[in-house]
Amino acid sequence: MSKVPSDIEIAQAAKMKPVMELARGLGIQEDEVELYGKYKAKISLDVYRRLKDKPDGKLILVTAITPTPAGEGKTTTSVGLTDALARLGKRVMVCLREPSLGPSFGIKGGAAGGGYAQVVPMEDINLHFTGDIHAVTYAHNLLAAMVDNHLQQGNALNIDPRTITWRRVIDLNDRALRNIVIGLGGKANGVPRETGFDISVASEVMACLCLASDLMDLKERFSRIVVGYTYDGKPVTAGDLEAQGSMALLMKDAIKPNLVQTLENTPAFIHGGPFANIAHGCNSIIATKTALKLADYVVTEAGFGADLGAEKFYDVKCRYAGFKPDATVIVATVRALKMHGGVPKSDLATENLEALREGFANLEKHIENIGKFGVPAVVAINAFPTDTEAELNLLYELCAKAGAEVALSEVWAKGGEGGLELARKVLQTLESRPSNFHVLYNLDLSIKDKIAKIATEIYGADGVNYTAEADKAIQRYESLGYGNLPVVMAKTQYSFSDDMTKLGRPRNFTITVREVRLSAGAGFIVPITGAIMTMPGLPKRPAACNIDIDADGVITGLF
Amino acid sequence: MSKVPSDIEIAQAAKMKPVMELARGLGIQEDEVELYGKYKAKISLDVYRRLKDKPDGKLILVTAITPTPAGEGKTTTSVGLTDALARLGKRVMVCLREPSLGPSFGIKGGAAGGGYAQVVPMEDINLHFTGDIHAVTYAHNLLAAMVDNHLQQGNALNIDPRTITWRRVIDLNDRALRNIVIGLGGKANGVPRETGFDISVASEVMACLCLASDLMDLKERFSRIVVGYTYDGKPVTAGDLEAQGSMALLMKDAIKPNLVQTLENTPAFIHGGPFANIAHGCNSIIATKTALKLADYVVTEAGFGADLGAEKFYDVKCRYAGFKPDATVIVATVRALKMHGGVPKSDLATENLEALREGFANLEKHIENIGKFGVPAVVAINAFPTDTEAELNLLYELCAKAGAEVALSEVWAKGGEGGLELARKVLQTLESRPSNFHVLYNLDLSIKDKIAKIATEIYGADGVNYTAEADKAIQRYESLGYGNLPVVMAKTQYSFSDDMTKLGRPRNFTITVREVRLSAGAGFIVPITGAIMTMPGLPKRPAACNIDIDADGVITGLF
Repeated sequence: MSKVPSDIEIAQAAKMKPVMELARGLGIQEDEVELYGKYKAKISLDVYRRLKDKPDGKLILVTAITPTPAGEGKTTTSVGLTDALARLGKRVMVCLREPSLGPSFGIKGGAAGGGYAQVVPMEDINLHFTGDIHAVTYAHNLLAAMVDNHLQQGNALNIDPRTITWRRVIDLNDRALRNIVIGLGGKANGVPRETGFDISVASEVMACLCLASDLMDLKERFSRIVVGYTYDGKPVTAGDLEAQGSMALLMKDAIKPNLVQTLENTPAFIHGGPFANIAHGCNSIIATKTALKLADYVVTEAGFGADLGAEKFYDVKCRYAGFKPDATVIVATVRALKMHGGVPKSDLATENLEALREGFANLEKHIENIGKFGVPAVVAINAFPTDTEAELNLLYELCAKAGAEVALSEVWAKGGEGGLELARKVLQTLESRPSNFHVLYNLDLSIKDKIAKIATEIYGADGVNYTAEADKAIQRYESLGYGNLPVVMAKTQYSFSDDMTKLGRPRNFTITVREVRLSAGAGFIVPITGAIMTMPGLPKRPAACNIDIDADGVITGLF
Repeated sequence: MSKVPSDIEIAQAAKMKPVMELARGLGIQEDEVELYGKYKAKISLDVYRRLKDKPDGKLILVTAITPTPAGEGKTTTSVGLTDALARLGKRVMVCLREPSLGPSFGIKGGAAGGGYAQVVPMEDINLHFTGDIHAVTYAHNLLAAMVDNHLQQGNALNIDPRTITWRRVIDLNDRALRNIVIGLGGKANGVPRETGFDISVASEVMACLCLASDLMDLKERFSRIVVGYTYDGKPVTAGDLEAQGSMALLMKDAIKPNLVQTLENTPAFIHGGPFANIAHGCNSIIATKTALKLADYVVTEAGFGADLGAEKFYDVKCRYAGFKPDATVIVATVRALKMHGGVPKSDLATENLEALREGFANLEKHIENIGKFGVPAVVAINAFPTDTEAELNLLYELCAKAGAEVALSEVWAKGGEGGLELARKVLQTLESRPSNFHVLYNLDLSIKDKIAKIATEIYGADGVNYTAEADKAIQRYESLGYGNLPVVMAKTQYSFSDDMTKLGRPRNFTITVREVRLSAGAGFIVPITGAIMTMPGLPKRPAACNIDIDADGVITGLF
């Protein structure tokens, strides 16, 4: 493999098409396009309204094995597969999440693909982009200010300040804001109470944006958001505070999908980016449903490994949107599977068929799981220079035995050209193995039955334990009428179990739900297993210290 | 006067020109324009570089008498005067500040003009606009996160956490964030300390943006920002934390002026909006200097009354930019002058020549002050339906005696048509009374001498008192080498004195400097007289409760 320049060098050297030209190519009318510079645009929701009776294109989810420090390359594969389908003459789009700004200044690493499989303008996408996450931040924090103002102004709703669950958000890594006390300084300056900040992409407002069908639906979701409880235990909503209209106004542009392109000028929607742990980790329904009208093939992805990302994509996003996914690509690497087979990171360059065979159990379980939703699976092996022929051959053989198509993907080094084998396998699968998609559980199951179904059937757990706190929360949510919402599991992404050290395909384990949160606006219940991080910190030497821009606009240190 | 619909109704009914057409009309090249939708654009700094040898247009500042609850209408007059000059066939632009988002949800009232003298798209300008204030917020808060991360990671710079002056910002009215304790929750979650949030427009980053000449100058200003002090009293800067490159990158688009238009399709730059108390309260130097190359007449404004706004415009903005203002318009209303003459708000509808004559002393002092900078003054009487002919006649007479031109302005009700008299007076003044502009003080004066000069010559004070704390701060700043910066007074805008109850033209008073702050990045010293508010609160029933947007995008309750 030849030396590949840095992601930002490749991205800044890209020959982009004017986004208006891209839009025209998709059949979008000029008055449905709102330009943000020459290479970014917001697309009106009228596009969907105009085309809603057109049949949908094929929907292809890209997910991955359980992630390891060896890396998988899910976004890179999504972009590369899209470019490869375009090279094969297909009318295709990719739908991705918007990256959070905070991590750009923490540990180096963008979220817009990598190598020769990126979406551009990468530096804009990774920074302010079209302001969607800022809009989420302000809609969220306006509600927070209204909650505290309500306390200050006499607390007519009788809110118990100790029960307020609505924190504030900012799209930065700032650990000092995790736990704070506000309202200090005397009577004129608020009512003192404990609270904190999460990163903006963890906001329920973001989850609402991504599950809404239009602005009025978004406003209704906002009005249902529960911010806390009264002294006698009744939920207090954003609607009770009359905040939903202002919140919706702040989101009037953010609700429109953002059109950009891949390095090979294939159109991409990048819209919405909810956390994959306390939310469902998929781009917006609005972007995906619009793309399904504009293209014959839509490639999309979901956060973390398939146990979390794909399950939520199917059970939450597809359920709410009425999507019928046609195929699912599971990204794996030889390196990561060897780690699942017990090889330490330092030894991954050495051929190890035994470990690969052992680690394959992880991929095998994900393939099985995709099957449980009735969706055909294709494995994409994201190539690394250290992969040996014997390892690749063994992996092909194991996948075939597990009933999945398999293809080598070299999109990081070669762009769409490196994804042609994968694209052909995906097309072949779409033709030969029709999807029989169905969700995993019915909404009328109890909250605990839904959790049990996911834990046993998807994670392979023997059962689920609940802390007393979790038990109480579940009872409360069911008695308040929230029992029929889908669940969004918050679990470590590094293991099928709730113990991040258990790699491969763990067996004979139970998971423990410690806490259960309610996202009544977004429309799901969040059972939490173990600690989840909703506000990252900066490392000892943040990437921010190396980032620069010069007088000619050349950016360095960013990815 | 006929019934005028609400500001948002007028604004939403506007027939806007595509902004690209406006840009072309100004001689801006297509590749120098970055569209943000059809009616907003960012203009490249290349425009100024391309035209820098062209002579500047005439620069007209719009300022006002000491504000009262009766209202003055400074922005409205700026916009209306601009439209009137355009109606007279002049090549004219208006340069205004970007409104803060927070107040839109607090007490009803936009900041983009009013009635038939507004800039549009008003709802966008008052909400996220092109994201400049969000960029300021993130550049500011990234630095804050880096400060706290530095404490967390071993504090190699030996920062005394009790001396950290760099707070965080958010562009909302949220009093509960004024005084907070962060870093709680144990070792992994930061170092506990007291701090707080200001509204984003109070950020020194905003002041830096507005005083910078280009992105590299902005980056240098960032590197000079003092965030706190070491245990042995040495200043710690953003440069010491290596934050300036990332901060500049976050501002790469925010630094470009935003082109929009008035209701009458006259081009307007709306760019930068620093607080008028702890900062200098003017739009960006970049916008004004670019406008001076594009237009023959540039109308701009400065925050609060002329004692604060005009003084800072001349002594800070014009000094740093090298501008030579050609004329100054002082906006006054009969109502407000009667309040300065002792009439309570409830009795303003009644003719009262005595009170008008008494209150005129306020306007007279502002006229005198403008003269001290060598700039000719024109008084604009912003018409109200309750003004009587006798009152207007008296006011004309008094202004003439004070040596100022005077004109009635009816732009709120009639748009540019209502500003023709004012425009003609301004043009006449520009022709007949050449400006002999000079700043009030030299930078090599001591900090106290600069303060004394402003207090005695502009405010009419007998002298200045200092608290021990203020004394100490001044000594410290001078010993650290910051003594040669200009000063930005923080004083109540409601009186020439530091006592907001003293209306009219108070005499026989001293002012007291209680505290002195340093904005080393922006490049000024802030002597503070009395309490200043850097984070507003929400009222009992926030405007946010009445704001809504419907399925057709019709906005209600916003202004």
